[in-house]
Order: sequence, then C-alpha cells, then structure tokens
Amino acid sequence: MFDSELLFSGAFKNLKGNIIRELYKYTTQPGFISFAGGNPSPQTFPNEILADLSAEVLRNNGVSCLQYGVSNGQMPLRQYVAETMTAEQVPTAVENVVITSGSQQTLDLLAKAVINPGDRILVESPTYVAALKIFSIYGAEVVAVESDDEGIIPQALKEELEKGPVKLIYLIPNFQNPTGITLSLERRKEIMDIVQHYNVIVIEDDPYGKLRYSGEAVPHLKTMDPQGQVVYMGSFSKIIAPGLRVAYAVCDEKIAQKLVLGKQNNDMHTPSLTQLIVYEYCKRGYLEPHIQECCKLYTQKRDTMLNMLDKYFPKEMHWIKPDGGLFLWSKLPEGYSAMKLLDYALPAKVAYVPGDSFFADESGINTMRLNFSTATEEDMEKGLKLLGEQIENYLRDSK
Amino acid sequence: MFDSELLFSGAFKNLKGNIIRELYKYTTQPGFISFAGGNPSPQTFPNEILADLSAEVLRNNGVSCLQYGVSNGQMPLRQYVAETMTAEQVPTAVENVVITSGSQQTLDLLAKAVINPGDRILVESPTYVAALKIFSIYGAEVVAVESDDEGIIPQALKEELEKGPVKLIYLIPNFQNPTGITLSLERRKEIMDIVQHYNVIVIEDDPYGKLRYSGEAVPHLKTMDPQGQVVYMGSFSKIIAPGLRVAYAVCDEKIAQKLVLGKQNNDMHTPSLTQLIVYEYCKRGYLEPHIQECCKLYTQKRDTMLNMLDKYFPKEMHWIKPDGGLFLWSKLPEGYSAMKLLDYALPAKVAYVPGDSFFADESGINTMRLNFSTATEEDMEKGLKLLGEQIENYLRDSK
Repeated sequence: MFDSELLFSGAFKNLKGNIIRELYKYTTQPGFISFAGGNPSPQTFPNEILADLSAEVLRNNGVSCLQYGVSNGQMPLRQYVAETMTAEQVPTAVENVVITSGSQQTLDLLAKAVINPGDRILVESPTYVAALKIFSIYGAEVVAVESDDEGIIPQALKEELEKGPVKLIYLIPNFQNPTGITLSLERRKEIMDIVQHYNVIVIEDDPYGKLRYSGEAVPHLKTMDPQGQVVYMGSFSKIIAPGLRVAYAVCDEKIAQKLVLGKQNNDMHTPSLTQLIVYEYCKRGYLEPHIQECCKLYTQKRDTMLNMLDKYFPKEMHWIKPDGGLFLWSKLPEGYSAMKLLDYALPAKVAYVPGDSFFADESGINTMRLNFSTATEEDMEKGLKLLGEQIENYLRDSK
Repeated sequence: MFDSELLFSGAFKNLKGNIIRELYKYTTQPGFISFAGGNPSPQTFPNEILADLSAEVLRNNGVSCLQYGVSNGQMPLRQYVAETMTAEQVPTAVENVVITSGSQQTLDLLAKAVINPGDRILVESPTYVAALKIFSIYGAEVVAVESDDEGIIPQALKEELEKGPVKLIYLIPNFQNPTGITLSLERRKEIMDIVQHYNVIVIEDDPYGKLRYSGEAVPHLKTMDPQGQVVYMGSFSKIIAPGLRVAYAVCDEKIAQKLVLGKQNNDMHTPSLTQLIVYEYCKRGYLEPHIQECCKLYTQKRDTMLNMLDKYFPKEMHWIKPDGGLFLWSKLPEGYSAMKLLDYALPAKVAYVPGDSFFADESGINTMRLNFSTATEEDMEKGLKLLGEQIENYLRDSK
C-alpha cells in the first residue's frame, strides 16, 4: 500500500545528487589524487584558536549560545558585518544584515522568497552547480547568459532582460566558481548601468573575494547599487572554516525581512555558538592575518598548478589563469568530452569535475574544473602528470 | 524602477511573522512576566560541560569539525541515534538517520520533498504554528482534523483520508504543542491501523517525549509502522539546548535520501561542531542524568502552575493537566476571545499566546497556551495572579 516514490513532489521526484558528490566514492579511495573538490585546505583551519574561543563563549555567554536566538542572527556578528561592509564602500546598517547557515542557504531562502514556477532567472555560463539546482527546485526557468573568458557579457545580459520579466540575476564576480574568472570594473559598471532599468534582484555571490593572489581588488557590485537591488552574499566558509556554516547576506531591509521569515520557517536561526565563535575570531583581529596566511599558501598552490599544466598538459589544452579563489578552468579541444575523459582518468586514480554540469544549457562538454586548494604540491605534480598522460591517451584514441 | 515588493513569490508576498515573535516586543520589557515563550529554562543549560567538550572536539578532531561534512550528518551521532531508537523498539540503521538543524528544518525539507501546490495535509487541531506556516508556504491545503481533550480523533482522521489523497499527516503524540495532550496507546494503535491502508506519510514530531513528569511512557507511532510510512522527528533542543540546532529524522531510507538532497541544496549540512558536541555529551553519559534533572525542575514548575491556576483563575476557566512537555492549554468560556484578553493582560505586564493561531481553521478563539518552563516560581505566582485578575475584568466587562 505505502509507496513513498508516489508521494514526492514534482521537483524532488527526479532530483539527483550532483556530480561532485558522485565523484566522492572514487576520490575517497586510497591513493586517489583529486582536483574535484572545492574544499579549503585543512591545514589553514585555526582549530586551536577556535577551541579556546568556543570554550570561552560557552563559559561566559552560555545563555546566548544555548537558548533560542533571533532568526536574523547574533547582533555582535551583524554589527561586525555591517562595519566591514561599510569599510568596503557599502554603507550597511544591522537591519541590512542577515546571518545564514552558509551562503547556499541564502540562495535557497532568496529563491524561495521570490520564485513562482516559470519565473526567469539569468545566470553566468557556466555557473555554480548548486545554484542551478536550487533555482530549478523552485520551478524557475534558468537562462544561461553568453559569457566569455572575461565572464558574463553585459550586452548579452541586456538582451535577455529585454525579452521579458526576470526575477533574479545570479553572479559570482570574483574568482568565479567554476571558471576562476573575475569580472572587470568596466563590466561591473556596465552591468549595474543596465540592471537599474529593470525590476530585478542581482545576487552578488562572493565566497572567494578575500582570497586574491594577484591583481587589484575590484569594487563590489553592491557599491554601485543606488536602488538596493543587489543582494551581497559573503561567507566565512573559505576564510575560516566551512564546517562552521556561517555566512551573511547584505541587502535592502525589505528583502532582509523576507530572508528572515524564510529562516524562521526553516532552521529558525543559525547556531548561536558558531556565530559567536566567528564573531570573536574576527573581533580579536585573527581574521586579517589568517587571510594573509591562506593567500600565501594558495598563491603557491595556484602557481604550482599553473607550472604543472605548462609542463604536463598537451598543447591542445586551454586554461584560464585565476587571480584568486580555489579553481582553475580548463578546456579540451572542441568536440571532445571531459565526461568521457573520466573513463581514462578515474582508472589512473586522478579526478576533476567535468564542466558540463555547471551549464544551464547543454554546452560545456569539453570543459573541466580543477581545484588547487586541497592537493599537496607533491600530489599536484603527480596528479597533473597522470592527468596530462590520460588526456593524451584520450585525444589519441579519439583520432 | 526597482520595487522588491513586486518580486516576492505568491507564498512570501503576504507572509508575516507569527504571534509568538510579535509578542517579543512586549515580553522583553523589564518587569514583564511571560508565559508566551516555548523556551527551555536556561538554568538547565550544561554550558560548562559543553565548553569543555567543544574545546576538546576542536582540538582533537579539528578537521572533522571544520571541513565540509556530509549532508546526512556526522556518522558517530547517526550511530548513536540509531542505537537509542533501536532500544526504543524502532529498529534503526544509520541509513535511516538524517541529522538536521532543528526539527523545524526536517519539517521544511519533508514538506519541500513531497508537497505540490494543492496537496492535502492533515493536522491535529490545534497544532504547532510553524508547521502550519511551512505547509502553507509550499502551497498545501492544510485540513484540521477534529480533536478533543485526548487529542486527534482516529475516526475523524479516517473520514478525512476517505475524502481523497493526502500527502502528510502531522502529529505531535507526546505533550503536544500547544495543548500538552498525550495520545493514548489505544488511539495510536487505531491511527496506525487506519493509515496503513492509505499511501500517506505520517510525521511523528517528538521534541518533548523525554520530558515526562507523570504517567507512563507510550510507545512511538514508529514502533507500529511495518511499511515505513512514519517519519519520526527527534531533537536535542529541549533536552540539551535549542541554540545548538541539532535534531534528527528517523525514517525509511528512500525518504531519508530525499531529505539529504534537500539539505544538500539548503544549508549543505548541520555544523559538524555542534553535532560532535552533542554526540560527545550523549556518549559520555551526561544526557540521561541531565534529562532527570530537567524533569525534576519542570515537574515542580508544572505543579506550581497547576496550583496557581486553581488558586487564581476564575471558575469559568478550563485547563488540561499535561503529563510532560512545556505547555498547558487553557480555555475561556465559549464566546470569549483570548486575543481580546491581551488588551487587558499586556498593560498588566503579563503575556500568554492566544490559541487561535494554532488552528488551521478559524476556531480556537477562546483558547490560550501557557508555558511553564521559563518563569521562576515567584514570577509564576505573581503572573498568574495578575492574569486571573485580568480574566475576571475581561469577563465582567463583557457581560
């Protein structure tokens, strides 16, 4: 009589785990070298300091840590976020700040708050795979906007906006996931000039912004936002630790209130303990030097990856040098498939993420995402050598 | 040009905060005595022990605490939950356990996984106010099933099931919120006999089950569930601390997988730190004696409330003695309004929750929820005396 399969909603009936999770069963095998993850390096985790801080806040501030808290987040952390955003030329009051359990939760809450089935959403092409899933769960029509090696093309964005109402534009302007591309100041200005003429929310997802290894910082889209149509999403996942699940949205108060209502009806609030640990870590001045340490480590890892690509990848391969973040984007020649290449790579015990799942349309078959934050330098050389050999085998076999 | 009001989804356009949150602005004033909250007593919080445990897990197990974790939860905690559920006559494997960020998140994930707009959901009348909100956000038609002073009426449930397909039945069998009523073994058996003939999921929400002050424990619905149609929801919020936001669902593996997909696309995973703190607290044997301490304290508070009601409430009032939990349910005579009574109570600096918001239909105007876990004994006497006086004033003025 009982058959749960018949009960699942339209959105969940065929919902599958994403490719990155699927690859886990390989990449956790001993001896496997993986460039597939998106994890920060565990050697950056300040666990001793966090241990001291967590014991201290629980001892001195037990009730705040342990009682039900407010849905918009712990006031000291909201104040800290408001101050740092204001210092980054985004005038921010605490009413504009909502603490969330990771930026992905902000995405989910915002999607839920605005999407009616069939609504159009514009995204970079490629873009963050979980964002594609989240938008589609709520029944949105996700439209990939033409993008090139410098990111989304403003004129193409305008053309899509002209075609009819759009609820959200989802952008990752710094060291994009998966491409590592940073949008230039010129493109940012152009985009904000365009969107102000449309009733649309722009999501500025910025989990990697502080992890810059070369070039100059570019102002946030939110600094060019006179109407309050940008929802800026920041996170402590990549600069302290993802396991804490603490992130924040900075936005117009009306939108903030809807996010808070969404949280009230989801996890009620982000755990106060993890919020207060993050707050103390920042307030005591640990964050800035820690980010510098992370950047030093990741600069080295990125440079090693670039050197190894030069050394081991066949000359037919193309890749984009990222100025920050965790990812590097590479392309096989047109007509080849990064998914098929996995048939060569996985038996050789090396992995990456085939890029097609980052595309809202059917394109990107020949692309792949390589993560450079987790592998050791030794594994990076070994793994990229192996991968280079397998690419050569695949290209040769396909001739 | 930009107007966010025009962008919100159908569900969020008119979504408001609930009455309990609205009352906060009164109840946080100095000198106010509130029976409106649903918080455990902060004097039960084991913050010193949690401080030690949190420092220890961060020091010894930093990477597990701080790196991205799996969406279904930390394996040791899932194993612990599986063992305790098995000991409570619910044979449970780790595959049946999903750790969530509070049971309310389980509700949200489950609702999202099964509800298509227009689907029918059956609830007790009255029931948990946030469940009503969550179901309605996903567009469900929520149907209140006739209930009496012993809880939901099985025959009435059957009649509603006969009327057409139902996706979910939402029940709080122990010390229900808001009524404090516990479903008898007989009614539980009757309900499970009925539901096995329908393709429907039964949610057994059990946040208070361990907080029993009188009477005998009654077996979970999930012990009478040969087809795996019950999703049991347990939580550490009321027996350790709500601020940690750690709860769990125990259910059929197929349903568990959908909950996990929902989490992957929401907060990704519950913070590993809070999960591991809870696990260590349980594993080291702190939980059982702590629950006994909580029960001792709350028994006293409940008995004080019952005594004060006898002493100060007018004879026209009706109330139900709860055998556990945090709430007591009271009724004004028919035709009177607990919402109107607030006009008397709030100026006298005493608060409760008017019961109508716990009803899916328009009934319950004369009902109110009184919480007995937070006020001190002294405040309880003072507050219930004040409230009794104001009820008398209201009844007299309305004659």
